[in-house]
Amino acid sequence: MDGRRVEIIEVGPRDGLQNEPRPLPTAAKAEMIERAITAGVRRIEATSFVNPRRVPALADAEDLMGLVPRRAGVSYIGLAFNQRGLERALAAQIHELNFVVVSTETFSRRNQGMSIPETLRTWHELAGQARAAGLRVSLTLAAAFGCPFEGEVDPKRVAGLVEQALDTRPDEIALADTIGVGVPSQVTELVGLVRQAAPDMPLRCHFHNTRNTGYANAVAAVTEGVQTLDASMGGIGGCPFAPGATGNLATEDLTYLLHRMGLTTGLSLPTLMHNAEWLATQLDKQVPGLLCRAGNFPPGEAR
Amino acid sequence: MDGRRVEIIEVGPRDGLQNEPRPLPTAAKAEMIERAITAGVRRIEATSFVNPRRVPALADAEDLMGLVPRRAGVSYIGLAFNQRGLERALAAQIHELNFVVVSTETFSRRNQGMSIPETLRTWHELAGQARAAGLRVSLTLAAAFGCPFEGEVDPKRVAGLVEQALDTRPDEIALADTIGVGVPSQVTELVGLVRQAAPDMPLRCHFHNTRNTGYANAVAAVTEGVQTLDASMGGIGGCPFAPGATGNLATEDLTYLLHRMGLTTGLSLPTLMHNAEWLATQLDKQVPGLLCRAGNFPPGEAR
Repeated sequence: MDGRRVEIIEVGPRDGLQNEPRPLPTAAKAEMIERAITAGVRRIEATSFVNPRRVPALADAEDLMGLVPRRAGVSYIGLAFNQRGLERALAAQIHELNFVVVSTETFSRRNQGMSIPETLRTWHELAGQARAAGLRVSLTLAAAFGCPFEGEVDPKRVAGLVEQALDTRPDEIALADTIGVGVPSQVTELVGLVRQAAPDMPLRCHFHNTRNTGYANAVAAVTEGVQTLDASMGGIGGCPFAPGATGNLATEDLTYLLHRMGLTTGLSLPTLMHNAEWLATQLDKQVPGLLCRAGNFPPGEAR
Repeated sequence: MDGRRVEIIEVGPRDGLQNEPRPLPTAAKAEMIERAITAGVRRIEATSFVNPRRVPALADAEDLMGLVPRRAGVSYIGLAFNQRGLERALAAQIHELNFVVVSTETFSRRNQGMSIPETLRTWHELAGQARAAGLRVSLTLAAAFGCPFEGEVDPKRVAGLVEQALDTRPDEIALADTIGVGVPSQVTELVGLVRQAAPDMPLRCHFHNTRNTGYANAVAAVTEGVQTLDASMGGIGGCPFAPGATGNLATEDLTYLLHRMGLTTGLSLPTLMHNAEWLATQLDKQVPGLLCRAGNFPPGEAR
């Protein structure tokens, strides 16, 4: 895999912060995004245009998007699940809409208050409008490796949902291990099935390290040719269903892993490490990422 | 890899506890070992017969070996680096001698007070005596994926050391990422080179999760056909060179990963999880393993 480029999306401002007990001030979120850009990140999941009562930590979506730097080549992803959310997202001048279809009925109703068929109908509606407005549109299959309510998720079911979504073809499909239960063999199988369902579709994977399988899953995804991985500064995040669990892959730990495997990311590892240390100070707690605790290798290495 | 058996060695009593600031009482160590056996573990790295002044946490080696249960099929591994250590190990009735050759000169002198050629000579001497006494003998190549003093370690160098050690053929060779810097591509390369140097040699890998690459490395090792992996109850351990870093792979997290990939270990995951919770209570701190914090999946699953 020497030299191959893997794209890392910084999801810390959205997926990382949404579960933080103490919300970060909007200005600090904007600095977080600025810092990610300085480290070389070019796609950032900035916020979610959901009901502020449901996710209070992201109630400042419009204010944040008014503060973030606007630079050529830097793309902001926003989540929206309904017409109101899409309108807010468009007004806030995001570049990419991410919509979520949850892989199980129970979780779908809990997460979005809709059945899976309703979310698929909403996907077609919103994706069509977003694309007409010039946005890139991506689709996330959530709980694709396991559901906190229904347990095991058949990968064929996930691939079937992908097929149903293709009437409005997304620019990218993301496979999300929302609760951090997946293992590499599942990644290999699911990526293979989704590739059959949607040949030539750019694939993105979103892993949580809740049970220490996340980085192994990332390696499996990259080995299968997945182009894009999600990660969060410092590894913040975590699932509301698993208190105390660590969250997303840490951007700096994932970058260390990929770089030492001979892959390229375009990111500066020392800057990512500084960013994680800065975030720990902002949140006033230790972040889950381990690289900053242990140090880069070889010591002093600047890659 | 469906159904293939992977052997897990519990190294918590030795590698896990040797860095603990507050030594566990000897009786608690014996209980730790008893609990590992109850979970299904059959090979246990119990202690090290080194100078008690150098590793005070293991000064109770003889006392511990007097307390541990002696059961058919349960094998205790002890480390010894010199004649005095081997004599103590034999008197304490261990079943398997593990000797260590460090892959770099600087680390070798710091770890064992000997040059690499001296450690190789000592290996031949001690392994010959141990085998004559009826013990199994295994050889660990330490710092095989990177050195805290010399930096990068050429895998060809490690394979060359294996070749030099083969005059006294070990029953098993362990490749150790002593400071937790390795990545899966290194595992694949090094295992391949060592297989060429020592065809048909049973291989064991020892990973630390210091930089969140350990579990991915374990998957790479198993994929390459490595039969045996080291892990420690709760993931305790950690490297004296990386304060605050997590330690060994957690036995329960590794078992979760392997079982969900369709591999078998012979271990009871619920018992391993209870053990890790017990150990956290004994040490009065959170252990690095994540599975106990997040819970098994599917919830209530008894495997």
